[in-house]
Amino acid sequence: MVACPFRGFFWSIMCQLLGMNSNVPTDICFSFDGFRRRGGVTGEHKDGWGIAFFEEGGCRTFIDAHPACTSPIADLVKHYPIHSHHVIAHIRKATQGKIALRNCHPFTRELWGQYWMLAHNGDLKNFCPEFVGPYQPVGETDSERAFCYILQQLQQRCPYRPSLPLLLPVLAELVNTVAQYGVFNCLISNGDFLFAHCSDRLCYVVRQQPFPTAHLVDADLTIDFSAVTTAQDRVAVIATQALTDNESWLPLQPGEAVVFRDGEPIQKFLRGISPK
Amino acid sequence: MVACPFRGFFWSIMCQLLGMNSNVPTDICFSFDGFRRRGGVTGEHKDGWGIAFFEEGGCRTFIDAHPACTSPIADLVKHYPIHSHHVIAHIRKATQGKIALRNCHPFTRELWGQYWMLAHNGDLKNFCPEFVGPYQPVGETDSERAFCYILQQLQQRCPYRPSLPLLLPVLAELVNTVAQYGVFNCLISNGDFLFAHCSDRLCYVVRQQPFPTAHLVDADLTIDFSAVTTAQDRVAVIATQALTDNESWLPLQPGEAVVFRDGEPIQKFLRGISPK
Repeated sequence: MVACPFRGFFWSIMCQLLGMNSNVPTDICFSFDGFRRRGGVTGEHKDGWGIAFFEEGGCRTFIDAHPACTSPIADLVKHYPIHSHHVIAHIRKATQGKIALRNCHPFTRELWGQYWMLAHNGDLKNFCPEFVGPYQPVGETDSERAFCYILQQLQQRCPYRPSLPLLLPVLAELVNTVAQYGVFNCLISNGDFLFAHCSDRLCYVVRQQPFPTAHLVDADLTIDFSAVTTAQDRVAVIATQALTDNESWLPLQPGEAVVFRDGEPIQKFLRGISPK
Repeated sequence: MVACPFRGFFWSIMCQLLGMNSNVPTDICFSFDGFRRRGGVTGEHKDGWGIAFFEEGGCRTFIDAHPACTSPIADLVKHYPIHSHHVIAHIRKATQGKIALRNCHPFTRELWGQYWMLAHNGDLKNFCPEFVGPYQPVGETDSERAFCYILQQLQQRCPYRPSLPLLLPVLAELVNTVAQYGVFNCLISNGDFLFAHCSDRLCYVVRQQPFPTAHLVDADLTIDFSAVTTAQDRVAVIATQALTDNESWLPLQPGEAVVFRDGEPIQKFLRGISPK
């Protein structure tokens, strides 16, 4: 166990996930400032990190095999406000696959003319599907194997891009299948939505009017969101562990998946099935 | 025509390409320092830029829809030495597709468990192949259509990763097919080699012992490569227009493709065919 110098405790053998989904393009500088410290300061996850932003269909991904707390690329992300509807970030504690760029999350692929990205916290045991055709892993992580399996299955089941009501149940079922092999907390986005699945640890907060003043867990830093937002803004932030210590973060249940769009949950699944 | 304040002239309606291939991981800071100035200082190509580095199978790509000369991300790339065997960079002058992240080069996809990337200078007319299955364009550029077409054809012809002697003639033939539709100066890499095709403008220089002192065209900046290399180092730099004004850059012929590996040309093709 690694003691946090501010508040809370972090598991020493887990990766960290951060996701953001919003109804207007929003930067993630404040949350990332706390999050990156888990990569070597408030957590010992020094085996690489990454962050990906969707922007009008395009996506930009920054990945680095160096610790997030000292990475010059993380310095850039912290100081350069990149505005996006969908962001996924990850700090790596290597369990499968060596410390290398090819094993850093988020992983990115293209499906149906859209970029897809995935980041994973957890550990899958004996998950070795056969890969035929496209979507083959480049690195050696269980996470990339899971991502390629999900995309391969989506592409085989739906040769053309389906509507969201048709797509989400298939995605939820596939993620639930992968989760049978171990711990699979994950964030997935294709630029239309952010899909969050919890095996054992994932929580979220929705920030909207009246906006709070938030204080980071990982740094003695406070922001008054009411000063940097408009009344219409709404932002959901999802993380393996709460990033702030004065907001009410809602935990996802084991086996639960939540789909976020426009900064709020729009659909939930439990073990791959949408509750009636 | 845009006059260069230092030496030489640049076409105002073309993108710019820069590639590097080396036998030891090498940074591209010096060349990129000159190259990026073509994105708004010595050239008027302000519609975005990008650079991609291969590192042990992984790749990191920085893209930005802002001018390269003022981009904070380009500042980072200039100052942060990233060492790689294969680098591809691009400065965009939009001809097809709006100014947006999704239309910035290099484009990246995965094929046979390897990342592939492409950047293109030129303009293809009426190039509208049918895309079925994977490798569908996200943006609206002729360049991404060409990339997806090439990968789709490679995947259909070779379901499994072929050896280099089998792969290169197929790739050369496909690139030559695309080039029938217009101007297709391009750089392609999969982390094993760097493939350069010239329709009307591409040149390269191989730096090896005895290393020169080089002076940039786009900035009054000089470097003594002998001070930052070892006797075994060898680096090929490929560009649409020479980056230095005191080295002998070799022009590729129209229709010529050159494959670089370990910092030197290993194979050439003319109009898709390997000369006897």
